[in-house]
Amino acid sequence: MNSINKKLNSMGLIIPDLVPPIAAYIPAKKVGNLVFTAGQLPMVNGELISKGLLGQDVEIDEAHKAARICTLNALAAIKGVIGDLDRIKQIVRVVGYVASVPTFTQQPAVVNGASELLLEIFGENGKHARSAVGMAVLPLNSSVEIELTVEVE
Amino acid sequence: MNSINKKLNSMGLIIPDLVPPIAAYIPAKKVGNLVFTAGQLPMVNGELISKGLLGQDVEIDEAHKAARICTLNALAAIKGVIGDLDRIKQIVRVVGYVASVPTFTQQPAVVNGASELLLEIFGENGKHARSAVGMAVLPLNSSVEIELTVEVE
Amino acid sequence: MNSINKKLNSMGLIIPDLVPPIAAYIPAKKVGNLVFTAGQLPMVNGELISKGLLGQDVEIDEAHKAARICTLNALAAIKGVIGDLDRIKQIVRVVGYVASVPTFTQQPAVVNGASELLLEIFGENGKHARSAVGMAVLPLNSSVEIELTVEVE
Repeated sequence: MNSINKKLNSMGLIIPDLVPPIAAYIPAKKVGNLVFTAGQLPMVNGELISKGLLGQDVEIDEAHKAARICTLNALAAIKGVIGDLDRIKQIVRVVGYVASVPTFTQQPAVVNGASELLLEIFGENGKHARSAVGMAVLPLNSSVEIELTVEVE
Repeated sequence: MNSINKKLNSMGLIIPDLVPPIAAYIPAKKVGNLVFTAGQLPMVNGELISKGLLGQDVEIDEAHKAARICTLNALAAIKGVIGDLDRIKQIVRVVGYVASVPTFTQQPAVVNGASELLLEIFGENGKHARSAVGMAVLPLNSSVEIELTVEVE
Repeated sequence: MNSINKKLNSMGLIIPDLVPPIAAYIPAKKVGNLVFTAGQLPMVNGELISKGLLGQDVEIDEAHKAARICTLNALAAIKGVIGDLDRIKQIVRVVGYVASVPTFTQQPAVVNGASELLLEIFGENGKHARSAVGMAVLPLNSSVEIELTVEVE
């Protein structure tokens, strides 16, 4: 078993099946040694598990978990392109889109669901630049959407 | 005539003139073999052809067409940097910003206007990673803004 | 003294101390010859100097200055990774997130605070692709958030 899979195993995590895109695009694209993922929603077995706006419909805790699931889906998307997550050299960039009413200002606490998972899995190589922003609304009324850029071997 | 121009021709499409930036930036920038475009608005002959928020002022159909026009403007921006669209190896990434009221959740249907055009023009090489998100508002009250990252030879 | 520092000096500008991330990420990440910054807020000595939504709480002038400060913080983030700003070959891409009520459509005027500063400091090499977009809200209620991608030697 390779080392990232061992790590995921020890964390009780499984990379989910690739989430099929909901429109005319692909889950991730490689160019040179970079892989860019599509924006990932918190889909589990084809169902969106967190819907609505932060500050109105959704609590931080729920959205934090949703961001974690988005990130597992993003890793599934990357695995679909490079075959083996051990080929990830480092996480480069995360964009965290958080559906928010205009009075909710804790987007970073939500997107930490993504960032903390990446640090846990990849350690030092998991450290990344990040933008967290508050959106009017997201596709399918998702509470959060996460996009990754990673460097691969 | 080169092959992408032939394809555009057969589709009855013409790459428009470069849309001059509306502020202190340039339409596209090349770094190594990547070209990043500025966010493109649906401008036709200097006029914004789709204004307002989805779910309130603008129908999906109109915004879908607007996303298509943004994409032609993005290709014009890339052409301005690399001279010839045949030098595009692949479309890497699309970000689709859709001005939306908080109850409109079909951003992917709008951004398909961009994605479908890219697939039509570039075929397999047109497949891209994509994020579609709902914005509070966009510059000049545009309904949509599209940004491309492409790999060039 | 190196040339960018000379230029900053002649402009009366000082690159601030690195702003510590407000969550589980790092200020900037290098991959190959690209550096991606985290989204930067207008923090001065640990305090956010511009809060609220454009079109309601904040004037363009204030947000334009805030965008300038975000950009200095982004340069501080890059300096933290590459040591010396003279190693910047060119500014590639700017994303300007502007917290806006749905009737405020002058995001480009705000983000010019970032773009104009980059042109002033880096001249021809400062020219960049850019997206300016209107957000429902930003972290800590910031009026603006700026993210840079640069090419380094």
